[in-house]
Amino acid sequence: MNKKYVNELKNHIGEEISFSGFVDTIRDKKWVMFVILRDSTGKVQMTIEKSLEENKKLLDIMSNISVESTVKVTGKLVSNEAVKLGGMEIIPSNIEITSIAENLPFDYNNLDGVNIDTRLDYRWIDIRNEKNMLIRQIESCMVQTMRDYLYSKDFIEIHTPKLIGAASESGSEVFEVKYFDRSAYLAQSPQFYKQMAMSGGLSKIFEVAPSFRAENSNTNRHTTEFTSFDLEFSYIDSYLDVMDLEEDLLIAGLSKVKEKYGDVIKEVFNTEVVIPTKPFPRMGLKDLYQELHERYNFEIPEHDIGDMNAEAEKLTYRLAKEKFNHEFMFIDDYTATKRPFYHMRDDAGRLQGYDLIWRGTEITSGAQREHRYEELVKNAKEKGLGKDVEFYLQFFKYGCPPHGGFAIGVDRLTMLLLGTGNLKDTMFIFRGPNRLNP
Amino acid sequence: MNKKYVNELKNHIGEEISFSGFVDTIRDKKWVMFVILRDSTGKVQMTIEKSLEENKKLLDIMSNISVESTVKVTGKLVSNEAVKLGGMEIIPSNIEITSIAENLPFDYNNLDGVNIDTRLDYRWIDIRNEKNMLIRQIESCMVQTMRDYLYSKDFIEIHTPKLIGAASESGSEVFEVKYFDRSAYLAQSPQFYKQMAMSGGLSKIFEVAPSFRAENSNTNRHTTEFTSFDLEFSYIDSYLDVMDLEEDLLIAGLSKVKEKYGDVIKEVFNTEVVIPTKPFPRMGLKDLYQELHERYNFEIPEHDIGDMNAEAEKLTYRLAKEKFNHEFMFIDDYTATKRPFYHMRDDAGRLQGYDLIWRGTEITSGAQREHRYEELVKNAKEKGLGKDVEFYLQFFKYGCPPHGGFAIGVDRLTMLLLGTGNLKDTMFIFRGPNRLNP
Repeated sequence: MNKKYVNELKNHIGEEISFSGFVDTIRDKKWVMFVILRDSTGKVQMTIEKSLEENKKLLDIMSNISVESTVKVTGKLVSNEAVKLGGMEIIPSNIEITSIAENLPFDYNNLDGVNIDTRLDYRWIDIRNEKNMLIRQIESCMVQTMRDYLYSKDFIEIHTPKLIGAASESGSEVFEVKYFDRSAYLAQSPQFYKQMAMSGGLSKIFEVAPSFRAENSNTNRHTTEFTSFDLEFSYIDSYLDVMDLEEDLLIAGLSKVKEKYGDVIKEVFNTEVVIPTKPFPRMGLKDLYQELHERYNFEIPEHDIGDMNAEAEKLTYRLAKEKFNHEFMFIDDYTATKRPFYHMRDDAGRLQGYDLIWRGTEITSGAQREHRYEELVKNAKEKGLGKDVEFYLQFFKYGCPPHGGFAIGVDRLTMLLLGTGNLKDTMFIFRGPNRLNP
Repeated sequence: MNKKYVNELKNHIGEEISFSGFVDTIRDKKWVMFVILRDSTGKVQMTIEKSLEENKKLLDIMSNISVESTVKVTGKLVSNEAVKLGGMEIIPSNIEITSIAENLPFDYNNLDGVNIDTRLDYRWIDIRNEKNMLIRQIESCMVQTMRDYLYSKDFIEIHTPKLIGAASESGSEVFEVKYFDRSAYLAQSPQFYKQMAMSGGLSKIFEVAPSFRAENSNTNRHTTEFTSFDLEFSYIDSYLDVMDLEEDLLIAGLSKVKEKYGDVIKEVFNTEVVIPTKPFPRMGLKDLYQELHERYNFEIPEHDIGDMNAEAEKLTYRLAKEKFNHEFMFIDDYTATKRPFYHMRDDAGRLQGYDLIWRGTEITSGAQREHRYEELVKNAKEKGLGKDVEFYLQFFKYGCPPHGGFAIGVDRLTMLLLGTGNLKDTMFIFRGPNRLNP
């Protein structure tokens, strides 16, 4: 395998090379044929002089080819100042057609008028779009860097089961699986298993894996399957340690993305990557309500008191920028009954958890977890949780250190980072109640 | 959070420190109490002189504690040559009990007589065992290094859906999910979506994610859910490029594991980490049969002709060692009809795929994939595959470069690396037909 990629061609000018890629465009002029070839790193021009006898065979081959077909070319890579694409061109001596493309159902370079469902129906064509290709590369970079940060802090990655025996945390919105002669369920999060690792003494763990939610909502921001970046660690003093780690993790990820993709994100997505300063601003829920009221005349509806809602999240972003010149804001002091039973409360009943708001959207819930068996049983009972959480409660009977953690939705993070505003084309493959294909 | 870990204590001798961990053992002597504390990196001694007036409070606290409870200790870390554990001990000034352990159902330090099902029922206790803790750390290191190798070659990680609309590749052994008013299925592998990425032009991708198999087998080597390390890349010349990458990937992973854990693997698992030399030996199936017959009097049963079986895999390992002084062996020239329809065949019908055998077990199937629409349709028809693969065939109608890839089962790799011989205690959480809890 000796294929050169576009982004390494500049080191091979003057050489005989092998180049494979998609046929991006063909400009067939009177005396010359210009063929733009493309791979995942960019585009390069191939030039065929029509008058040359030895090019007859090549022109024959090219006459049978459509754009988006793929080819394998051998030839000389030569410098040519007149060529806009990197000042070089391939002069081919051989062209092999490796696949022939039918007419495409839409022009993926111009997606403005294309229905999102058509795009998702033909997702393998849709992702040839430059933006969509960048989304995948940038998301991968962000996750890689966040993982690396955790490895550098002696975290290990574990792989928790997605097939579980009980309907789990909330009991609702869980998918049921036919499991031989009984039912299994798809994990809504690795929460219980992350905590099991803490009880097992593993201390510092993370996982990047699918989570499933049987939510029958058809919106741009709901999906039935998503990739969750989850971590949990032991021996914390309070949830402030969890927030502290999350700050460092996001700063590491965003710094790398800015370094590697900052310019192209600005150019292609018209969005600035801002490295947040530490500590992120933090407000208690009541103070936040009050300030949102004073500044923006916001009133939290009765049924949301003790929690946030979508409008509050949006205004919180505005407040974070105006008051703290920051894109992030931690919110704490939620009402305990509004939060999961496994979030710790202190002796005064104050919830030891938080949300993190970025660019108008909640990206994380984090907390110190309740590791004391009796307290946990009490909290579960208060929520009306019974048999389904019994197996989980056992984890805390045989010694378990204080611990905490959080989860970040990977595609939501990418959506906010790039300002795409839509999970459907931010995820590699979107899943919704009406979308299981391809 | 100022907890020090055992493996960093040697840099803090003479200092006031905070240490949190499990109470591993208590040796209550006449004049002194020795308490061994443990975290995920090792053990350290805490020493309480009984005669000292100021220790009365500490002894009171310790009298209420059981082994495997957790504590947070502050005190002075002092050098003491007489202490076997690192020549140091903690002289506590304060001890806080953070959780109390009930009597454990078994001694996790001595698992020989403990039924594997009891161990799995209490997996959070089972993984406190030193071996089990090492398994998790070593597996994480192996996967991290393999990922890093791919990142260094410009691969990106993608996240493919596990909820799919059709019963997929084989049609059998697939889990059915109640998906609102219809059925979905759990992906048996990301194969189709990896290839979709190739058609989409992403060129080099990998994924580490769960795969699901509804196999009703109760053995030590079958599991209904496992972590698969999958990759796919474009512009290959043949499946030899795929084998070449797999060699480099495994050499990278094993080298790092040997460097970091080689000694402890030898000591605790009595197993040598052997870095394979490149190229790995390779044999065609017929030549292999013949040599296994000549050397070991092996006869392949009629119904396995064209394929391997468990005995052949074991003998192949013996042959690899005896003939090539190597632990690995690639096998190719399988009969096309015995292999998946998406494996490419050359013009003579020769299958462009391979298996990799390590230590008596197949760890990979790899191949160049069929990317030519007409050929793929023909192969699918030959296998009797119809509607379920129709969506997949569409990926190849609009241009798709030649590509190939493979998958490695992460826990199987770890099992062979450490010689555990059993998936049930090699996986973090095992899943079988009778095992969905915890």
